[in-house]
Amino acid sequence: MAATTTPRKDARVRYWEDYAVGETADLGSCRITEEEIVAFARKYDPQPFHVDAEAARRSIFGGLIASGWHTCALMMRLSVEAARREGAAGAGSPGLDSCRWLKPARPGDVLAGRTEVLEVWPSRTRPYGFVRRRVEMVNQHGEVVVAIVGISMYQRRPAVVA
Amino acid sequence: MAATTTPRKDARVRYWEDYAVGETADLGSCRITEEEIVAFARKYDPQPFHVDAEAARRSIFGGLIASGWHTCALMMRLSVEAARREGAAGAGSPGLDSCRWLKPARPGDVLAGRTEVLEVWPSRTRPYGFVRRRVEMVNQHGEVVVAIVGISMYQRRPAVVA
Repeated sequence: MAATTTPRKDARVRYWEDYAVGETADLGSCRITEEEIVAFARKYDPQPFHVDAEAARRSIFGGLIASGWHTCALMMRLSVEAARREGAAGAGSPGLDSCRWLKPARPGDVLAGRTEVLEVWPSRTRPYGFVRRRVEMVNQHGEVVVAIVGISMYQRRPAVVA
Repeated sequence: MAATTTPRKDARVRYWEDYAVGETADLGSCRITEEEIVAFARKYDPQPFHVDAEAARRSIFGGLIASGWHTCALMMRLSVEAARREGAAGAGSPGLDSCRWLKPARPGDVLAGRTEVLEVWPSRTRPYGFVRRRVEMVNQHGEVVVAIVGISMYQRRPAVVA
């Protein structure tokens, strides 16, 4: 799926051509609170170890942990904010090639996003290009909490009319 | 990651041994509202076509669409509710092997979940087993909106002491 978010003409714009394999970036960080963990999980993932502190204490996690979908959603927010800062001509995503929830995220954890471009290729039929990248959220102990390989679409740089 | 949600002794429990390749199930359905689309996206995926009805109308989507992470979160809720109904001894998930956002989900859409077991295998080191399954959300037009291949963990059936 693709959507055009037309950049302002006077703004610096980062098109598909501006992404290169091997490029890495820090996406900033966020703190995850118990209140947010429980609120997200009550709506979307009401398993006992996400919504019930007492049941979570008795589980092998030993305490409340965030839904994996919640850590992915926070990773998305950091990605969108970073894309906005760099003026990316983002056009949506067809999906992920993998997602691994490697360590629990617990109340008070600070999660930092980082990303690396793995592959770039143009659309054959439309004025877009694809970027495959690894994105990770790393906690305050340096442990990778979640790692995905995802695909993003970007607008191609418009041809310059002489 | 694994967590034990100890089932009540008098309840029917569905252990890892009770899942078989080829088994399919309907997960129920839910309606997605504009209010919910915007609220989720403001928190986790504030791209214009998810949060701004007017900007979305000008995009190639022609109107607001839900964040792909939102449709995944709704798929998770249907999965958790279905697991609870069948008394599944669920123990978390190590992740996904793929995720594809195939069609937009729009305000008012009714999304129905369905799943098929693709593979089952036991843990070599712990009293758990794995189930790899395809899970899809299908809209009221019969279109698949999102499809994942995910891995779930379940407790093994306890040995019967004679």
